[in-house]
Amino acid sequence: MTTHMLGDDRFAYSQRVRYMESFAEAVLDLPDERDETISLAYGDADPAHFPVAALVGAMTHMMQSRVDDTLNYAPPDAGLLALIHARMSRHNVNLPLSQYITVNGSSQIIGLLPQVLCDPGDVIIVEGPTFLGAVETFHNFGVRIETIPVRVDGMDLDVLEARLAQLRNDGVAVKCIYTIPTFQNPTGTLMPLANRRRLLTIAATYGVLIVEDDAYGDLHFNSALPPKLIALDTHDSVLYVGTFSKILAPGVRMAWACGPKALIQRLHRWKAEGSNGPFMTRLVAQVSRDGWLDRHIDHLNTLYASKCAVLLAGIRAHFPSDVRYVVPQGGFFVYVYLPADLPVAKVMPAALARNVSFLPGTTCYANGEGTHEMRLSFSYQSAERIAIGIERLGAALAAVRAGQP
Amino acid sequence: MTTHMLGDDRFAYSQRVRYMESFAEAVLDLPDERDETISLAYGDADPAHFPVAALVGAMTHMMQSRVDDTLNYAPPDAGLLALIHARMSRHNVNLPLSQYITVNGSSQIIGLLPQVLCDPGDVIIVEGPTFLGAVETFHNFGVRIETIPVRVDGMDLDVLEARLAQLRNDGVAVKCIYTIPTFQNPTGTLMPLANRRRLLTIAATYGVLIVEDDAYGDLHFNSALPPKLIALDTHDSVLYVGTFSKILAPGVRMAWACGPKALIQRLHRWKAEGSNGPFMTRLVAQVSRDGWLDRHIDHLNTLYASKCAVLLAGIRAHFPSDVRYVVPQGGFFVYVYLPADLPVAKVMPAALARNVSFLPGTTCYANGEGTHEMRLSFSYQSAERIAIGIERLGAALAAVRAGQP
Repeated sequence: MTTHMLGDDRFAYSQRVRYMESFAEAVLDLPDERDETISLAYGDADPAHFPVAALVGAMTHMMQSRVDDTLNYAPPDAGLLALIHARMSRHNVNLPLSQYITVNGSSQIIGLLPQVLCDPGDVIIVEGPTFLGAVETFHNFGVRIETIPVRVDGMDLDVLEARLAQLRNDGVAVKCIYTIPTFQNPTGTLMPLANRRRLLTIAATYGVLIVEDDAYGDLHFNSALPPKLIALDTHDSVLYVGTFSKILAPGVRMAWACGPKALIQRLHRWKAEGSNGPFMTRLVAQVSRDGWLDRHIDHLNTLYASKCAVLLAGIRAHFPSDVRYVVPQGGFFVYVYLPADLPVAKVMPAALARNVSFLPGTTCYANGEGTHEMRLSFSYQSAERIAIGIERLGAALAAVRAGQP
Repeated sequence: MTTHMLGDDRFAYSQRVRYMESFAEAVLDLPDERDETISLAYGDADPAHFPVAALVGAMTHMMQSRVDDTLNYAPPDAGLLALIHARMSRHNVNLPLSQYITVNGSSQIIGLLPQVLCDPGDVIIVEGPTFLGAVETFHNFGVRIETIPVRVDGMDLDVLEARLAQLRNDGVAVKCIYTIPTFQNPTGTLMPLANRRRLLTIAATYGVLIVEDDAYGDLHFNSALPPKLIALDTHDSVLYVGTFSKILAPGVRMAWACGPKALIQRLHRWKAEGSNGPFMTRLVAQVSRDGWLDRHIDHLNTLYASKCAVLLAGIRAHFPSDVRYVVPQGGFFVYVYLPADLPVAKVMPAALARNVSFLPGTTCYANGEGTHEMRLSFSYQSAERIAIGIERLGAALAAVRAGQP
């Protein structure tokens, strides 16, 4: 079973390491972009709207007060946990502080989950399509991944229920359901209230943990959102994962999770380095205080809503009429389902030839699907470049349909 | 075997998690200090000498240039790895950049090691006394810990060699030797060149990895130091761990490791969150550039040398003449061996009653030793407070010896 990819086995590693290495690393078939390419591929934040002055001001302030608490050995800043707790309370999440953990980006939680939950052969259920980083991490840790399709209203719960029944029948241990119910990556779909309630009931019935990745939960273009899964949960069955990456800056690597006490304790213990330390936690807390973060999020939502509108207008103007997509009410992405004659394998070279790129749907699935799907991000590029990029992409689609290169 | 300390087993965790929880968490018997207590217990940096202005300047600069590379999704700053690599090259360590990893403090490497190297029952060899955080981490991950005594010139290599032979004879897998050869924590000892060469030979003979924790390697009060183990190593058998905690600030949580290619690759993969991200790596690189870090280290060495001298003078003036200790040439600590009638169990309450504290030797051993040993730190307190603290401690020792409380 074990193949030693890394070659050197002079030192005996742990069984777990050797097992993990029996899985090849997923190699993503990502576009090789040129400098002049307008990339609509990645979900980076808009660099023109990073809060540079606010961050410098926060750092200057924190260096002028309590410098020992900031720069010495110290626990994470209590103000950050209090701020996160208060923000979650506004969404009717009322867990005690002891059921929270700060982490170095959501990816740390995603990486810890298989270590804490899974033995070889155990299953994690994901949506298809979903966040490619999570799929790759689960895969690299030797987890068996089961994919549930995403419809216009999120994960298909009929398929989920049937799959859970089958897996139980087969004696397979399902360790968690990883879902992005709000402005799903990549589809932009929003799971409605009734589906949220049903998902919780299904998970409780099968005794399976739900991991609610809420990276885009604050990025909505309209005011009304259904409650978070964790706010609806009455079975203590949801691990919620939130992040400052989209609402402050990805580079600060600050995220949090809250959920069942025993699971949070285990995550604390398996987080090899201990806490996030005082400096970054205090910087994020300091910049966010006194309502600044809410005002910044309002600003971002105005910005991203307008860029989303530009992208959608471009699709309507330049794409063939037989593409399908969900008009997102938030998040970073528009996900486009292409007709049979427009596979991404053909569209991608035509797009790159016209100096525009996107994320192929195939990179968002654990099971090889997505051959006729593309993720378009409106987060990173300016409105002007989005408009140009979509026009180029429309030309690429037309060329492929016409049988031209 | 398994005891479920955390109580909640509604979700099935991984075997590894359950195994780990069969070990009780080490509960350190640390002093409960009052506000007016002068603590000589902890190895915190001197907060009066944190480079506040330099850090604010570095942050301001990096926010004014390449903000996208700093705040968006991005790899760790290439400048930081280059800086670390250049500093190691000055010590004749010539590994390629691909054999380096940045981590969230040395504790992250220490936490990853048992995960990557050890199966249940495997052994890690440590020094006794040693860094309590490493012992606790290894213990909590279910590692069997073997302790080799520290003499005036560091780890006793005769004992090490005999123990390795015995363990091989017993069929026990020894996964690494964790050593702090330079200004050892807590003893302050410096392993001489001949011993370093012999340690490398022993490790090569038994095919065991050496983990060289060099947290104090830059903090020396005299110019001449023996080469680092990794610089002497010809068998690719040393994982070197360095940190910015002592030379910049613990709060930035920035450390690195370099060593065998296959091991570094595995550490990269098991670092659940991926990289350290762009913000903190760039901040540390920016503040350190153009020789600033070297000048800061020179300043710290002048500072710590003078505070060490104050502590030693206090010991000579106020401690009984039958205590023993190594006069350190660097680092943060003076480690005192007490005579039979002065066990720390009696000295600690007498010290706390006089508003001074220290770290009991018992917290620096994995095996219950250290009942007549104390670690005194000269890093955190001012020279004035060190002098007062040592005088109080001398009074406590005298009182215990006289049979008074």
